[in-house]
Amino acid sequence: MKDIMDEPIQLLGISNAIVDVLTHVEDGFLEQIGAEPGSMTLIDSDRAREIYDIMGPATEVSGGSVANTIAGFATLGGRAAYIGKVRDDQFGEVFNHDLRALRVDVRLAPAIDGAPTARSYVMISSNGQRTMQTYLGACTELGVADITAATVGSPRVMLIEGYVWDIPEGPALAEQAMRIAADTGTTVALSLSDALCVQRHRQSFEDAIKDGASIVVADEDEINALVECDDFDSTLEAIRDYDNLFVVTRSEKGSVIVHGDKKVEQPATPVAEIVDTTGAGDAYAAGFLYGWADDRSLAECARLGTYCATHVIQHVGARIEPELLERYEERRDADAG
Amino acid sequence: MKDIMDEPIQLLGISNAIVDVLTHVEDGFLEQIGAEPGSMTLIDSDRAREIYDIMGPATEVSGGSVANTIAGFATLGGRAAYIGKVRDDQFGEVFNHDLRALRVDVRLAPAIDGAPTARSYVMISSNGQRTMQTYLGACTELGVADITAATVGSPRVMLIEGYVWDIPEGPALAEQAMRIAADTGTTVALSLSDALCVQRHRQSFEDAIKDGASIVVADEDEINALVECDDFDSTLEAIRDYDNLFVVTRSEKGSVIVHGDKKVEQPATPVAEIVDTTGAGDAYAAGFLYGWADDRSLAECARLGTYCATHVIQHVGARIEPELLERYEERRDADAG
Repeated sequence: MKDIMDEPIQLLGISNAIVDVLTHVEDGFLEQIGAEPGSMTLIDSDRAREIYDIMGPATEVSGGSVANTIAGFATLGGRAAYIGKVRDDQFGEVFNHDLRALRVDVRLAPAIDGAPTARSYVMISSNGQRTMQTYLGACTELGVADITAATVGSPRVMLIEGYVWDIPEGPALAEQAMRIAADTGTTVALSLSDALCVQRHRQSFEDAIKDGASIVVADEDEINALVECDDFDSTLEAIRDYDNLFVVTRSEKGSVIVHGDKKVEQPATPVAEIVDTTGAGDAYAAGFLYGWADDRSLAECARLGTYCATHVIQHVGARIEPELLERYEERRDADAG
Repeated sequence: MKDIMDEPIQLLGISNAIVDVLTHVEDGFLEQIGAEPGSMTLIDSDRAREIYDIMGPATEVSGGSVANTIAGFATLGGRAAYIGKVRDDQFGEVFNHDLRALRVDVRLAPAIDGAPTARSYVMISSNGQRTMQTYLGACTELGVADITAATVGSPRVMLIEGYVWDIPEGPALAEQAMRIAADTGTTVALSLSDALCVQRHRQSFEDAIKDGASIVVADEDEINALVECDDFDSTLEAIRDYDNLFVVTRSEKGSVIVHGDKKVEQPATPVAEIVDTTGAGDAYAAGFLYGWADDRSLAECARLGTYCATHVIQHVGARIEPELLERYEERRDADAG
């Protein structure tokens, strides 16, 4: 039997390495702390302390948007690697362990000084919506020096998250990563992360998309923010003029894949109860990219993405469970039969 | 409206402060690491590292047997306090936060040096059984000096766990705690923790039970180990000769309360699916002691304990959720009406 550790890397993630602190919040709590429902806000260490002091009991689990996608990709059986910065503290140990346990090749050693490993308070409302307040901590120390021919290697796809642009050397390290990718023939995918993040870095994202990131992963709000349209139909028209492959998730409206004149629409799968939407887009990206790296059709990639997202919203937490691909293939074969 | 923080403490817990590292294990994993299914084994830091290196992704959540009971008691609306030792690291911060968030009065500050906060690998098999490997870390530094008239106060009930006898000053600090309890008229409850723990400390437990611990909380295996009987019916006969109130849980066989000639039998509630038995006994103790501190009948205490345990085995993790008491009272009133 072939050992997956000997196989070439299919997907490399570059992103903020974050431990999620998951808690259920009552109505009124978000207002109390002044958080916009459904948003992701960056906070400093004082504010992190303040919120934690009044927050309910929580569960800790490895998170981070693109890190979730990498974990999901590996869980599906793909060969993945990861570049992100943690501190050598307990949260950092947990974060790296949880990737390594999925046989992800973790490329950087934890920092031995500086800020602690990042945490994101993921506040789950009674309707399943999540609101995040993120203290970036050690993530902010990821730098250009960490992005080398050795740490990047020559993966089939490199997935960078928009949130990386929020850290001091983010734009420069992303540029460096895309330069290395160009040299090695690696396909670059950019995840737009969050509509507010797109607003913060719109021009840089435009440049990256014109200049190397041939796949764009986004949700409806993020892609609208990128092309500065309020109306999704106009956005769909606008992105047809790009050369890029756009992978756009739309919650209960499903997803749409656009590549020039080619368009694939995939409806969402209805579920009895949405438990927690955390990581739905990340899981979708894992399934989609797994299919893509396996040379499946765009329609099949979209179905696999949908299957992963549908799974992840039905339990608490952002990461998918083992045996998901087997269950998907079984169901698909049963449907086809 | 009365603030619960101003009310007198009903239940004080003294125990090992532990963060649970929950993971699902495949058949064969326990054998691979040489763990007896269903047991709790103490491990050192090297062994903790070794197991973690080969363990799958995990979720971190505050645990510890009596700490779970304290959290459950507070979740039900009782006024609780806690004595246990964590280090000033991230796991320690999480542990104390999760108790404080339930308005538990955490009596000790984290240690500023020494071993890290304790962790227990809780390995959940496909049948829901849990096997624990526990690295005690900072717990071992809990000492006689931490048990004072000021830290103990004068709670209505003091609950000490048998696992405390596993730490170097454990027997001495338990003795000191019972001495203070005797002075203040506090009822002492002893949780027997684990059958192997009873075997390690049987004579000390006997002494504590004869000499101050008027309530004994145990499961069937633990109480059998205490009276050195293999047969539960003989054990039931044996404990009738004690003056103590025995609260004994028996998994799917329900629970039985024995106080001299008085005996209350409470059947278990059937459930569709057992997800994770972690914390079932702890949750039972929370419900039982909540009823006891509220002067309810032993039968009602047993029903409340059963309700809490039934709840906790139907989700992953050892701690019960808010609003549980309201749901219990509603159901009870509906059944009665």
